[in-house]
Amino acid sequence: MTMRIGIIGYGNLGRGAESALRLAPDMELKAVFTRRDPRTVSILSQGVPVLPYADLGTMKGEIDVMLLCGGSATDLPVMTPEIASQFHVVDSFDTHANIPAHFAAVDAAAKQAGKVAVISVGWDPGLFSLNRLYANAVLPQGTDYTFWGKGVSQGHSEAIRHIPGVLDARQYTVPIEAAVEQVRRGENPYLTTRQKHTRECFVVAEAGADLESLAHTIKTMPNYFADYDTSVTFISREEMELDHSSLPHGGSVIRSGKTGWEGQTVQTIEYRLALGSNPEFTASILVAAARAAFRLAEQGQKGCKTMFDLPPASLSPLSPEELRATML
Amino acid sequence: MTMRIGIIGYGNLGRGAESALRLAPDMELKAVFTRRDPRTVSILSQGVPVLPYADLGTMKGEIDVMLLCGGSATDLPVMTPEIASQFHVVDSFDTHANIPAHFAAVDAAAKQAGKVAVISVGWDPGLFSLNRLYANAVLPQGTDYTFWGKGVSQGHSEAIRHIPGVLDARQYTVPIEAAVEQVRRGENPYLTTRQKHTRECFVVAEAGADLESLAHTIKTMPNYFADYDTSVTFISREEMELDHSSLPHGGSVIRSGKTGWEGQTVQTIEYRLALGSNPEFTASILVAAARAAFRLAEQGQKGCKTMFDLPPASLSPLSPEELRATML
Repeated sequence: MTMRIGIIGYGNLGRGAESALRLAPDMELKAVFTRRDPRTVSILSQGVPVLPYADLGTMKGEIDVMLLCGGSATDLPVMTPEIASQFHVVDSFDTHANIPAHFAAVDAAAKQAGKVAVISVGWDPGLFSLNRLYANAVLPQGTDYTFWGKGVSQGHSEAIRHIPGVLDARQYTVPIEAAVEQVRRGENPYLTTRQKHTRECFVVAEAGADLESLAHTIKTMPNYFADYDTSVTFISREEMELDHSSLPHGGSVIRSGKTGWEGQTVQTIEYRLALGSNPEFTASILVAAARAAFRLAEQGQKGCKTMFDLPPASLSPLSPEELRATML
Repeated sequence: MTMRIGIIGYGNLGRGAESALRLAPDMELKAVFTRRDPRTVSILSQGVPVLPYADLGTMKGEIDVMLLCGGSATDLPVMTPEIASQFHVVDSFDTHANIPAHFAAVDAAAKQAGKVAVISVGWDPGLFSLNRLYANAVLPQGTDYTFWGKGVSQGHSEAIRHIPGVLDARQYTVPIEAAVEQVRRGENPYLTTRQKHTRECFVVAEAGADLESLAHTIKTMPNYFADYDTSVTFISREEMELDHSSLPHGGSVIRSGKTGWEGQTVQTIEYRLALGSNPEFTASILVAAARAAFRLAEQGQKGCKTMFDLPPASLSPLSPEELRATML
């Protein structure tokens, strides 16, 4: 049975979802919804309509799962509960501190409507979280480490762009390899913020801007850069476009634990992502989670879920028999 | 509510399970069962009885989940269905080719008795399988690679021990780092058996044995060594005990995939284990799976499961709320 999918929002994440759906043998993209004028949005899929967000309700009964491709700051807190009262939904809500409140709001809406909503899907939160959970369940005695990068932090890039005199900026978070190696060797180090990551900023400045003062402003910005060793490199608009237009990311979750009667044995679990495109990868996870949402709903489940609640098999297009024969 | 656990078999795996249970706040070890004379088996836990395997039935109603710590060759194919008709069970059946048949036999027994049986728990099959599943669901277009080691292969060590003139042997499987690096870089190489792993053998020979001929016999053994670059080092009994008494293992599962409209973006997912003790780690996974078995049974489920069927949250002692707040 083909699952009928809608995409809401056509930025980097929405475009990634469109591509990911091409590789799903059991899904069909039915429509893309946008808050822009649909005539200004041109998508890649042939014969798929671009519809105004306001017309969402008219597709009830024609779409099974909506992929919410908006942002966590203002879009999803409102959108996810609203849409979960009409469709099964998947979102990538990633403001860690607000997940409990978001969960409660979405759960109430989805339960009332008999829908399944999977929130906080992606890689962190998402696949990284899953690996933290599995590693902690298997090694209760131990320490967790998360390293991010090398990759573009959109939030940090944006923070630099807001500084007067800055035209464009790209910030890379870079894990400190010596620290990663220490953790891998099971040395269980205590690491400060500064010892785990450096931050590399590439900045296009306005003509005539005081570069030294700009660099100082960036490096001392509280919360964003003050706690890190930060480098600032000024480049031209052309260099920015040529060398920094993709959105790579990744990182690793490592749990270093102990087993044995006296806790004498060191065991290390590492999960590592090297992503050519952060939004394309995140969108690929949304698509797999949409499959799980649809299947849980078919089993009569409803309400809000996270990846912690999804049986792994429910994410795969293969049958349980095929999975056991080919992947176990 | 405390889950009451039994261990069947007290070899390396059973001892590992005993240690792992110490770290489970929600479990209590009720008894260890053995086919040896119980008076000859001394366990580490205070006040826990060692009982003959034949008395298993007398503990019905006093134990919730049995951890089956026997071998896949002859023990588990018989034991798991038999015991699943009296208790919830977890086993580490790892003969990949026979999993479908084992699943069917265990499923029939467990369903009839209203019990939950989780089979093929461990790291391969087990955590490695889970990572293959997740990585394939997220990146449908791509290639899987599994590297094992550096670690002791018990099957290969045993094969050497059967050669006349050999007193003891330890075989290490060693991944070829250059191949691992190629895969990590997303180069998607085609790798032969010989290009992925080497095999290092440490052998204690009988006094006066023809070492050159022994080494030749090992290196040319079909299925086990003929397809690999194999080294053979002769050592003394004392060196064997001093340097090769632990059972380290590990390895990595890597999926190198493509995303984007034209499949132009390389994405790499890697899962890597570095294990100080293979049996202690495997036993730790059995314990987490026992928790999941118990919880699924409480929800009214029955029959045979694999780790593919267990919602990740069911493996953790934390509540769903705690998990979302601390690990998502």
